[in-house]
Amino acid sequence: MTSTALLDPNAPAAGAVAAASATKAGQPAFQHELRIYWEDTDAGGVVFYANYLKFMERARTEWLRGLGFEQEVMRREEGLMFVVSDTALRYLSPARLDDWLRVTVNPTEIGRVSLTIDQQVWRGETLLTEGRIRIGCVDAASLKPSRIPARILQCLQR
Amino acid sequence: MTSTALLDPNAPAAGAVAAASATKAGQPAFQHELRIYWEDTDAGGVVFYANYLKFMERARTEWLRGLGFEQEVMRREEGLMFVVSDTALRYLSPARLDDWLRVTVNPTEIGRVSLTIDQQVWRGETLLTEGRIRIGCVDAASLKPSRIPARILQCLQR
Amino acid sequence: MTSTALLDPNAPAAGAVAAASATKAGQPAFQHELRIYWEDTDAGGVVFYANYLKFMERARTEWLRGLGFEQEVMRREEGLMFVVSDTALRYLSPARLDDWLRVTVNPTEIGRVSLTIDQQVWRGETLLTEGRIRIGCVDAASLKPSRIPARILQCLQR
Amino acid sequence: MTSTALLDPNAPAAGAVAAASATKAGQPAFQHELRIYWEDTDAGGVVFYANYLKFMERARTEWLRGLGFEQEVMRREEGLMFVVSDTALRYLSPARLDDWLRVTVNPTEIGRVSLTIDQQVWRGETLLTEGRIRIGCVDAASLKPSRIPARILQCLQR
Repeated sequence: MTSTALLDPNAPAAGAVAAASATKAGQPAFQHELRIYWEDTDAGGVVFYANYLKFMERARTEWLRGLGFEQEVMRREEGLMFVVSDTALRYLSPARLDDWLRVTVNPTEIGRVSLTIDQQVWRGETLLTEGRIRIGCVDAASLKPSRIPARILQCLQR
Repeated sequence: MTSTALLDPNAPAAGAVAAASATKAGQPAFQHELRIYWEDTDAGGVVFYANYLKFMERARTEWLRGLGFEQEVMRREEGLMFVVSDTALRYLSPARLDDWLRVTVNPTEIGRVSLTIDQQVWRGETLLTEGRIRIGCVDAASLKPSRIPARILQCLQR
Repeated sequence: MTSTALLDPNAPAAGAVAAASATKAGQPAFQHELRIYWEDTDAGGVVFYANYLKFMERARTEWLRGLGFEQEVMRREEGLMFVVSDTALRYLSPARLDDWLRVTVNPTEIGRVSLTIDQQVWRGETLLTEGRIRIGCVDAASLKPSRIPARILQCLQR
Repeated sequence: MTSTALLDPNAPAAGAVAAASATKAGQPAFQHELRIYWEDTDAGGVVFYANYLKFMERARTEWLRGLGFEQEVMRREEGLMFVVSDTALRYLSPARLDDWLRVTVNPTEIGRVSLTIDQQVWRGETLLTEGRIRIGCVDAASLKPSRIPARILQCLQR
């Protein structure tokens, strides 16, 4: 998607994004950028609201990857999965086809078996959606709660 | 889907559903039943959590239809749409492929431009997910808030 | 969804459906009815074309269920899955929000490890989409081709 | 997503991609890279087959954008939309969670009102899915066929 970003006049450079984000919402722990496609929209002409949960999930996935953790590897090698236990979203302004969005990730509570993460979806300087997501670590087979591996907690607590 | 329900041993008869629902969660204003298909699941082997928002939307749509209001007609003839402004979901137990679910609809606040609706997703006697959804009435073109048509409010307030 | 069908003037009675279908496309082996919701639409104001593959999957799932085969049970008890190997769809006319559709299932080739199924999506007397889907039976763990269980073949060949 | 690509050992550099693609499938007119997330997978543990149509759509969208055409602008300013009229896909090998994929775009027929585009989905050197998509230009309101704007045809024919 590098080329996409370069082709898109609306896609701010990384530096600009960090600046805007610092101004508007404090420097987030991580941010992920994405494009809105036909698949994301509905007959209202805007992004279908359930899809913001997907965008936030993509950002959390890339945030974990950036810390060195791939969920598929966790599942295969340790039999652990992160699952979402609570989601609370507020929709402030709609995104539309071709929009280039920025999704932030801010962990606010870090427990032994669960995390609370605040996330925002921005188009340029406009906050579109904000949410709080609680995720838990579970055994991939039994889906029973399991401790978050120490090496992940260490990264998160830094 | 009539034949589905009849073919499915897990699909309680309408009467049984009402009874169970009355026992477990009070008689809901409306309930809608649906099947879980491959499209609804993820690599965790369970229903992808964002999809419960779709199931709750289907139930609200059928609830409005049952009151005599089709959203497509509202949009075409009155230029009005219902939009979701807030969603809060708690995931208690996962649904899986082939499950037959029951989604309840209970309006808890009825305002002039917005509604708050409590919804639950059940598999038989097991509560899987519960949520609170706030929806607003908007002008379909400008997406600006607009009064809910009186004839709809009258139905809801009965 | 029984009540939905009864509430919906566009939903033909089962008899009428069979008749229309017999007239238009020969009596199909099976048909499944479904409603179009917001989740199915895109910013073009019509159903997003990829979703017809979901509707056809739902119909095949209910067709198999009607023959007594639940895919989740197959996977759990026999370690077998049906997977799609080829899809070819033609889009003739768009479906819209609130439409009530009928999806037909007609197996045209029944092999030892794969099936070819012709499917159509109708709104009343209007053919919206038609497709040919090839599915194969695989080992759920290795995803390697596996013989379709004899008891399923026997049902299909009747 | 630039940072993602940099963080991902499996994400080949642009040059490497072009080389691999030239080797395996001839230099495509355009290619788009994307990540597989939970939302893309199903209970089979692999990418849900209908989603490859989304990935191919994303690549076509970025290909058009790269030529200077944004579909939302086309719709708003010219009242035109591209719609998909035929899709034919072959699934050769499954993609999984966290995979980094490359989707190619090769227009093979360029008509006055429609285009045929061959597309492939690759993971590194492995071809996962290939398809032929026919798209037509329509009036956004009536959905009736309409000539592809001359300036777009000129770009495509170069």
